[in-house]
Amino acid sequence: MIKFTVKNTNKKVRKGVLNINNNIIDTPCFMPVATAATVKTMTTSEIKNFGYKIILANTFHLMLRPGVEIISKHGGIHNFMKWDGSIITDSGGYQVFSLSKLRKISEKGVDFISPIDGAKVFLDPKKSISLQEQFNSDIIMQFDECTPYPADKKTAESSLDLSLIWGEKSKASLTKEKSNLFGIVQGGIYDDLRDKSLDGLINIGFDGYAIGGLSVGETSEERNKVLDNITHKMPKDKPRYLMGVGTPEDIVEAVIRGVDMFDCVIPTRNARTGFLYTKNGILKLRNSRYKDDLSPIDKDCQCYTCKNYSRSYLKHLDNCKEILGLRLNTIHNLYYYHNLMEQIRESLTLNKFDDFVKNFYQLRNNKDNY
Amino acid sequence: MIKFTVKNTNKKVRKGVLNINNNIIDTPCFMPVATAATVKTMTTSEIKNFGYKIILANTFHLMLRPGVEIISKHGGIHNFMKWDGSIITDSGGYQVFSLSKLRKISEKGVDFISPIDGAKVFLDPKKSISLQEQFNSDIIMQFDECTPYPADKKTAESSLDLSLIWGEKSKASLTKEKSNLFGIVQGGIYDDLRDKSLDGLINIGFDGYAIGGLSVGETSEERNKVLDNITHKMPKDKPRYLMGVGTPEDIVEAVIRGVDMFDCVIPTRNARTGFLYTKNGILKLRNSRYKDDLSPIDKDCQCYTCKNYSRSYLKHLDNCKEILGLRLNTIHNLYYYHNLMEQIRESLTLNKFDDFVKNFYQLRNNKDNY
Repeated sequence: MIKFTVKNTNKKVRKGVLNINNNIIDTPCFMPVATAATVKTMTTSEIKNFGYKIILANTFHLMLRPGVEIISKHGGIHNFMKWDGSIITDSGGYQVFSLSKLRKISEKGVDFISPIDGAKVFLDPKKSISLQEQFNSDIIMQFDECTPYPADKKTAESSLDLSLIWGEKSKASLTKEKSNLFGIVQGGIYDDLRDKSLDGLINIGFDGYAIGGLSVGETSEERNKVLDNITHKMPKDKPRYLMGVGTPEDIVEAVIRGVDMFDCVIPTRNARTGFLYTKNGILKLRNSRYKDDLSPIDKDCQCYTCKNYSRSYLKHLDNCKEILGLRLNTIHNLYYYHNLMEQIRESLTLNKFDDFVKNFYQLRNNKDNY
Repeated sequence: MIKFTVKNTNKKVRKGVLNINNNIIDTPCFMPVATAATVKTMTTSEIKNFGYKIILANTFHLMLRPGVEIISKHGGIHNFMKWDGSIITDSGGYQVFSLSKLRKISEKGVDFISPIDGAKVFLDPKKSISLQEQFNSDIIMQFDECTPYPADKKTAESSLDLSLIWGEKSKASLTKEKSNLFGIVQGGIYDDLRDKSLDGLINIGFDGYAIGGLSVGETSEERNKVLDNITHKMPKDKPRYLMGVGTPEDIVEAVIRGVDMFDCVIPTRNARTGFLYTKNGILKLRNSRYKDDLSPIDKDCQCYTCKNYSRSYLKHLDNCKEILGLRLNTIHNLYYYHNLMEQIRESLTLNKFDDFVKNFYQLRNNKDNY
């Protein structure tokens, strides 16, 4: 059961409350990525303590390792990885296209070669939905084809047509009444194709609507133009989820355009290469100037890392490839992302979102710290 | 300031209390290894929560990275790595001999090539002590030559003679009144040489005495024979520290022979390759039989890992090279080691150490769990 209520709006921006199987989540929200049933380097207690209430896991990765039988034997991903919040699973479509080099695609589905052990694997809407239901996922994504970038209009259209057919098949494949299914808008950078995709999805009817095929190489201007056209046309009473986005700036720009939910590997992946997010922009830990810098990443940040450790110590850990460094950097970035979303929500509650955006960009122009 | 009080004995075994600069540590105790100013994968809060009160850091590694200036700028290792317990530092001698391939040794000291960047480095007693004092170490180890194994008697003797000279120079190099210095008994597997080494060290006079040159390839029988001969001759009112030992069995056997302090990378290093310590011996996580095993590593273990996660999940994390797996395995092993030392101390308090040892070996013969 999903229930979504919009509490507050400011132009296109929405503050809402998402009730997923009785887990109450304030939106706009960010969902950390737990690719292989772990948010990289973190325990689920830590993720919960940041304040996150929903994470994203990957059907593609989990079907290959450890396989659905093992997760099913645990009663689902929640118990496998010991996460008592909500879990959204992607359908596997995106990874089939991005990670497997050899694949054969037809309306029926996709044959591909496992990048892990070279085994032949088949995935179609029915199997993707079945896997996600066996994972006991709280939000199931339809099986889709992620249109590549760049794509000419003809390619983008046949791709969205296929995704629409697969969307319908995905819905027809649901077997549990409590399953929540999201459709995915495709159509590349073409406004009329995005409209066609959305109309088709609304005809089928979903519990929420995602925008796919972005964050795949397009410019921010192109992405924002797509969002400018499509987001406000999406059903007002359903959550809107922008898949795989993004940097703090990307998220703020998408919130401005009416998006409610986000997921991205950026805070976790970039932490592991020493890219640390702060109100003033990115601190690149590998810069030699930090080697004897006793100050924290951000003196105003209240995360465990900033309250305890110097840039110098963090740089030393990175330099020695120490795992604690990966952890402390990830703690900082996930804290930053959660805090960013909280600031957005709070400013909406206080009807001060415009001030928030102005302040957000002003702080980023202040590079004195770095 | 170090104060050591023996509270309780059972034959050669001692239960004691070590007061290091007002940090009270019950012995026999185990000290996790923080090679590069981090107990690998762990935060210092976690180390403290296990109950550990003292850790070991490596002069050799820290002098090369990040260098003494940076640690000194933080006011010492404690503040650099945010550890408010005690820190013992080795002298760098052991690593000069084990890690640097090119070295030139004389009574003056050792010239060697840094394994990190090929730089020429010089280390002698004076420099080693100066580094350890700048690190603000609570227990400083004398600079010594770790006699290799096997070594003929002549080699072992000239090596221990050099270590004695360096022991005297180490003591003469102390500049801070509050510095606590331990001497290191060498002499290979030769009882008379161990005696000569100990006598020489007692003549110089140290705050504690370590047994070095073991755990370098000798058999347990050879090691236990050395301990049988030397440990009870060491000053009764000073702590006895067996360097670099060892497995749970090695520790129990050394406690039986009168050792008070231990350090070893085994619980942390072996955790990272899936060797998990339990009352019944080692569980090798990479064994395929655990892939769908829903039980915890040890059902009676109260660590965070065992209270939350299945062997199957841990195996999945190991299989995917997920950092969380390294963390959860390390948590289990460090919890096990701390618990082992607590059981030893408790059995000594209750005058039931013999029962403890009997039970310890009986449980290890029960392999039903694996």
